[in-house]
Amino acid sequence: ARPRVGYFYTGKTGTELLTEKIKQFKVYEYQSVPIVVKEEASVYDAISTMFLEDVGTLFVVDEHSCLTGVLSRKDLLRASIGNQDLDAIPVHIIMTRMPNITVCYRNEMLIDAAKKLIDKQIDGLPVLKDSEKGLEIVGRITKTTITKVFVELIMDEHEHL
Amino acid sequence: ARPRVGYFYTGKTGTELLTEKIKQFKVYEYQSVPIVVKEEASVYDAISTMFLEDVGTLFVVDEHSCLTGVLSRKDLLRASIGNQDLDAIPVHIIMTRMPNITVCYRNEMLIDAAKKLIDKQIDGLPVLKDSEKGLEIVGRITKTTITKVFVELIMDEHEHL
Repeated sequence: ARPRVGYFYTGKTGTELLTEKIKQFKVYEYQSVPIVVKEEASVYDAISTMFLEDVGTLFVVDEHSCLTGVLSRKDLLRASIGNQDLDAIPVHIIMTRMPNITVCYRNEMLIDAAKKLIDKQIDGLPVLKDSEKGLEIVGRITKTTITKVFVELIMDEHEHL
Repeated sequence: ARPRVGYFYTGKTGTELLTEKIKQFKVYEYQSVPIVVKEEASVYDAISTMFLEDVGTLFVVDEHSCLTGVLSRKDLLRASIGNQDLDAIPVHIIMTRMPNITVCYRNEMLIDAAKKLIDKQIDGLPVLKDSEKGLEIVGRITKTTITKVFVELIMDEHEHL
């Protein structure tokens, strides 16, 4: 394809154009499906789910799909050291509990979610939606999401322009 | 500061300029320090090191600091389930071993390292340097590295331009 060559007037530098485009990216456009377990699930079940679904963060929900806690690989690893009876420990004992969870919302900017991951030193964020029942979990944003966006952005520009 | 406004002739579109800039980023400019353990270290020691250093991936080295294996949180979690004697298992039993490890090199493009993280579905890459003794490990690139670059890129452009 012939490269597009020409004069153009923008009032902005070239790099500003792409960063402004990226700032328009919303969480709901990039979120993936959240993998959840119930509060009564055992630590053993949670570890099995984590391996089966191949995720680094599990979200704990009540009977209305509302978020009550988060389990990281670190939390599960800590619980499993020297504990022989992982079937007997429910996850609500070891999970990080609301309101001590960093969250994001569907309409938030992706870049703000990415900033939270770095500032709070966590691997994943639950994406929430306000409903009558409480804060319903509808997605997840992780460092994998952001790394994917980064790669696709750079690779795509190369192919499309 | 007065915004830079004007006509400019480039032969490239604005977004191409930033993506070409990003493609120049090299691994050695962004790598962090690799956290390593020896092959004879126990699984218990490795888990302790992982918590102490707060990393998701440990690299296993021989006496010349050359890479022989990799340990992920998943590997350690798998080993710790139902195993009471983590002190008695050396990490070389459970690690992923060379040449089955995805690696990168100091002079590689950061974007290519990011692509490997996505394609291979891993959290971290060892950064290697060819030395007389073998493949020496000199750094690590993780999804955290890439997420940080993404955030700084967007936030920085906003402040500097």
